[in-house]
Amino acid sequence: MTDATLDDFRARCRARVEATLDALLPPASVQPVRLHEAMRYTVLGGGKRIRPLLAYAAGEALGVDPVLLDRPACAVELIHAYSLIHDDLPAMDDDDLRRGRPTCHRAFDEATAILAGDALQTLAFQALAESPGLDAEKRIAMVASLARASGARGMVGGQALDLAAEGSVLDVAMLEHIHIHKTGALIRAAVQMGILAHDAPDPDHAERLDRYAKCIGLAFQIQDDVLDVEGDTDLIGKTAGRDQVLEKATYPALVGLPEAKEMAAALIGDALESIGVFSSGADPLRWIAGALIGRKH
Amino acid sequence: MTDATLDDFRARCRARVEATLDALLPPASVQPVRLHEAMRYTVLGGGKRIRPLLAYAAGEALGVDPVLLDRPACAVELIHAYSLIHDDLPAMDDDDLRRGRPTCHRAFDEATAILAGDALQTLAFQALAESPGLDAEKRIAMVASLARASGARGMVGGQALDLAAEGSVLDVAMLEHIHIHKTGALIRAAVQMGILAHDAPDPDHAERLDRYAKCIGLAFQIQDDVLDVEGDTDLIGKTAGRDQVLEKATYPALVGLPEAKEMAAALIGDALESIGVFSSGADPLRWIAGALIGRKH
Repeated sequence: MTDATLDDFRARCRARVEATLDALLPPASVQPVRLHEAMRYTVLGGGKRIRPLLAYAAGEALGVDPVLLDRPACAVELIHAYSLIHDDLPAMDDDDLRRGRPTCHRAFDEATAILAGDALQTLAFQALAESPGLDAEKRIAMVASLARASGARGMVGGQALDLAAEGSVLDVAMLEHIHIHKTGALIRAAVQMGILAHDAPDPDHAERLDRYAKCIGLAFQIQDDVLDVEGDTDLIGKTAGRDQVLEKATYPALVGLPEAKEMAAALIGDALESIGVFSSGADPLRWIAGALIGRKH
Repeated sequence: MTDATLDDFRARCRARVEATLDALLPPASVQPVRLHEAMRYTVLGGGKRIRPLLAYAAGEALGVDPVLLDRPACAVELIHAYSLIHDDLPAMDDDDLRRGRPTCHRAFDEATAILAGDALQTLAFQALAESPGLDAEKRIAMVASLARASGARGMVGGQALDLAAEGSVLDVAMLEHIHIHKTGALIRAAVQMGILAHDAPDPDHAERLDRYAKCIGLAFQIQDDVLDVEGDTDLIGKTAGRDQVLEKATYPALVGLPEAKEMAAALIGDALESIGVFSSGADPLRWIAGALIGRKH
């Protein structure tokens, strides 16, 4: 694919995601207004939409019609959005800024933020269950996949491990273990949506895409840690240096900044190698891998 | 059914629920231990299991094999359990006691309680998605039904309406609107699980069971309000008189205690009438309706 084609692919995915999310979310004109406003504020307030993009890009590599991925891609984004709201709460990371705007509990109130997060999680599973164009077998496989990735043995488990680790000394293996759950599981789930939407995915291709997702997921987290050190608050949209204040274990803290950057680059190399057998349909996945390393926010 | 048969039915349902929940919940011996302990503490810490019992009882009325309802019945209970944890949080009702024991955030900590609630919600949908014995069509219909009942237009929406109403003057219609969402939706979902597990439920029977569930749901809430006034803390397992302290609108506060009791009794009458056409298979539903009014906790 040419750069122009890739730009076009991204723009089309983005437009699909924003339109689908807008349609899925309850209107702010309907009661309970404050809850609906908080849900819309968080979900429609920007964001890189990396998880939905990964779902579409995995689908593109396998020749899946993007229309089949609108709901599944957005379901993953809704889980991500709910986790951000709850993560930012005073009892958790107690953060005031997210995507350059007040966090949900700051813009609304704590009770509304808790409920908005809860309702967004529910909406993710409802969106999948009612996803048009996919037979019941595919939809139920997606619900199971997304639930496994999000729950106690996935994302939420990773957040619990992360909380438990605050202030204690971690090694790289333990940090990786946290991140594989905390952020990696949901990124893998995004790619799984693209695979599960296919009628009969080739097992080797499915495995390659999953390996790509694992590498990308970890690289993404390392890069996040790097940006927390190097980035500035305006660009990353959240308070820079926050990890250090919270005494969180990060890759730069454990292995140093240059080594952390090298680790991320090596993982991106592995990700690209894993999808080397794919034709140009996998170019969006290749582009995402490259962009992850270059990103400034 | 004789009383002994009913007692036996209840005991068997109860045993199925406790065993299924225990198997569904992640073991406390596995990391993250604290999260898993908090999930198990809340879910396995007693509770009347009314929602699972309703699922089995609705299934019994239609001749559904109870084994098919183990996961669906427990999925509804997991949603109920997560909502209790989040409801008790300091930013919400700020309650210290639940089922006669410290609430989850008191027994553990606030962050763990938030995450445990989140993970329990996820587990509910995972349990449904992976429910054995039910084809994909039935499972996906159950996921959709439970999600609609739990989300912004169901239970969570009701909680948001309830919060918004604190301190303001409500009439009976508005209070009913809150309760139809806050507690009624999930009770209807429990009965829906029994219906959806059937291969081809008779539409008239399905409608009658749904009407039963609507009446029971509202009666249950009115009775809860009555118990908050009349009950004692030891028996109801939570702080009696709490509604008045929080200036919550309740049926006794709006219409007086005798009228509230009459309303509950009338609703139970409607519920019983609605399932009058069923044979003795509906006796467990009839027993539940009667027991609701007689309950002291």
